[in-house]
Amino acid sequence: MRLESQDDLSAAYTPGVARPCEVIAQDPSAAWDLTWKGRTVAVVSDGSAVLGLGDIGPVASLPVMEGKAALFREFAGVDAVPIVLDTKDPDEIISIVRAIAPTFGGINLEDISAPRCFQIEEALADIGIPVLHDDQHGTAIVLLAAVINSTKALETTLGQLSVVISGAGAAGRAIARMLTCTGQSEHCIPVKSLLVCDSKGILAPGRERMNASKDEIAQVTNPDGRSGSLQDALEGANVFIGVSRGDLLVADDIRLMGKDPIVLAMANPIPEIHPDAAFAGGAAIVGTGRSDYPNQVNNVLAFPGLFRGALEARARCFTESMKFAAIQAIADCVIDPTPKRILPSPFDRSVAKKVADRVAEAARDAGVCYGD
Amino acid sequence: MRLESQDDLSAAYTPGVARPCEVIAQDPSAAWDLTWKGRTVAVVSDGSAVLGLGDIGPVASLPVMEGKAALFREFAGVDAVPIVLDTKDPDEIISIVRAIAPTFGGINLEDISAPRCFQIEEALADIGIPVLHDDQHGTAIVLLAAVINSTKALETTLGQLSVVISGAGAAGRAIARMLTCTGQSEHCIPVKSLLVCDSKGILAPGRERMNASKDEIAQVTNPDGRSGSLQDALEGANVFIGVSRGDLLVADDIRLMGKDPIVLAMANPIPEIHPDAAFAGGAAIVGTGRSDYPNQVNNVLAFPGLFRGALEARARCFTESMKFAAIQAIADCVIDPTPKRILPSPFDRSVAKKVADRVAEAARDAGVCYGD
Repeated sequence: MRLESQDDLSAAYTPGVARPCEVIAQDPSAAWDLTWKGRTVAVVSDGSAVLGLGDIGPVASLPVMEGKAALFREFAGVDAVPIVLDTKDPDEIISIVRAIAPTFGGINLEDISAPRCFQIEEALADIGIPVLHDDQHGTAIVLLAAVINSTKALETTLGQLSVVISGAGAAGRAIARMLTCTGQSEHCIPVKSLLVCDSKGILAPGRERMNASKDEIAQVTNPDGRSGSLQDALEGANVFIGVSRGDLLVADDIRLMGKDPIVLAMANPIPEIHPDAAFAGGAAIVGTGRSDYPNQVNNVLAFPGLFRGALEARARCFTESMKFAAIQAIADCVIDPTPKRILPSPFDRSVAKKVADRVAEAARDAGVCYGD
Repeated sequence: MRLESQDDLSAAYTPGVARPCEVIAQDPSAAWDLTWKGRTVAVVSDGSAVLGLGDIGPVASLPVMEGKAALFREFAGVDAVPIVLDTKDPDEIISIVRAIAPTFGGINLEDISAPRCFQIEEALADIGIPVLHDDQHGTAIVLLAAVINSTKALETTLGQLSVVISGAGAAGRAIARMLTCTGQSEHCIPVKSLLVCDSKGILAPGRERMNASKDEIAQVTNPDGRSGSLQDALEGANVFIGVSRGDLLVADDIRLMGKDPIVLAMANPIPEIHPDAAFAGGAAIVGTGRSDYPNQVNNVLAFPGLFRGALEARARCFTESMKFAAIQAIADCVIDPTPKRILPSPFDRSVAKKVADRVAEAARDAGVCYGD
């Protein structure tokens, strides 16, 4: 709106602005209609785990948050506001996000290093607006949609899959939790077996160089107590999910896997294994972050629609069922998956809308929305 | 920018976005060029002192912050982001603003109640970006420009003025400090005498019902140790500045004042005295927040240009000299002040630019800019 006249000024500012203030003071949920809250999320980071750059601090991470904001706007019509924080103290980050929450309809945590990101996200589950650490769940959601459609393309089932995850950080933990149904009876993707590896090899209870988060992962994976290297883990496996670092595997490593292996190598900008090497090793399906090969796995498929759906439903939080709905929505965007096409294009403008609709429906079904 | 292609996506997000991140990590001041920082301020409030509504809390205050953001954009091309805080603890507000500071080029504190607003603003003086509590300084700046031009219109001088301020809150304290040159040798507006009144009457050291902020005001005003009511204070005074509450004075109160009194009654939406009553009492010049009478005193004349100038100069803080430059710039916008025209129109689009230029010049002269 242009402010041309005294009437415009009076409406946008004092005294006209007092009216919506009074309405919201009586009924805070009116803020979703009367302010930007219902269409706006904050993209919050401390700059501690930025792309391949690591801990570059808040101000240097600002361009990433601005880019993310542009994608929110472009793909889902969501206004996103970068907020970078000059603190790495988890308790302080929790306090700050809690305090700024009335301003926004949702919080996208971004590029916060593990294991602090887990503590921060969990402590913010009850602040009354949905909070999502995209590096965990956005990535997990798109990858699991890719796994589902890979089974369709290969005419196998999830229950037959032995899965190996390389990477026990933010994304690795979120994927492991969804594949092992931790605390989420209905909304999970049960596979036959799951091993998670870090740079020291297979996670197992009691192994050296563990931490609380890795202990937790080890408790719910690796039921046979296997130990050894990533290569040991790959023997006979059906799915490799890489959320770790580039140039980790060669074609011979893929040859260790079972029949028709699925290789999803997400390290950025250089995948855990080059697509050509994966195919040379016998991979039936390969997905990476790269746009110059088929099956680009890009979390832009998830986060715009996830938040759009949460905002439309006026959700108080993200439930597991909402994340699961996003996985299904993304998977369903591809009618007949083939090995060369397990995911929709990142530029398919219909994806975010479909994800949003399913996420909003799941939120309403879960009874977690304002107005329920 | 539209994100149409893989190239667009790569530039806005990963991997292209890594380049500006690396540049800023080497040289944080590059953020002014490479991100939104150089054109963006946060409008931060706890919703504790909103218009005439009082302490309505953060979410209900959001419309005011949005309106303020619209004015920033409209009058100065500055992007402003509302941030409302679910805390009233001054130390926590200070920590939060300090933490989010890397995101922005400046912080406009808004509608935070006195005396907490003083403590908060002072504690944020060294955070590396300019911080201004607009309810204090924005209002003070426009009022003092009005006083300067009133003296021109009446062919008197500042040194001849006995001034009475009604209101010892945010704005009253800021005006009193500028009129008494507290801690600011060059940049002040010395008047002949100054009394400040609250609802209990004239502030004086040792009076009952004082607080730390009022004690401080009393120390630098009222040199003769006068006591009594607002009406007692007005006897023989030349200027009444009302930053208190509506319907406080009647025409007879103005008749107590000296020759050709100047009455600037800012209470909103109802002034301390109606303009008609002030004229009936003999006022030579009347200014209010009302748009239906001459001399509308509106802080939109100050804050857009103040922040625009600070951003253009990449100032680290607001100095007294920058505020003083804004007063002079606003006053100079009226070439030949008359009793009916002591201030430019709030819709004069040239004001913010003129204020910005003078403020930026003052910042550079003060040596408080990045790159100095």
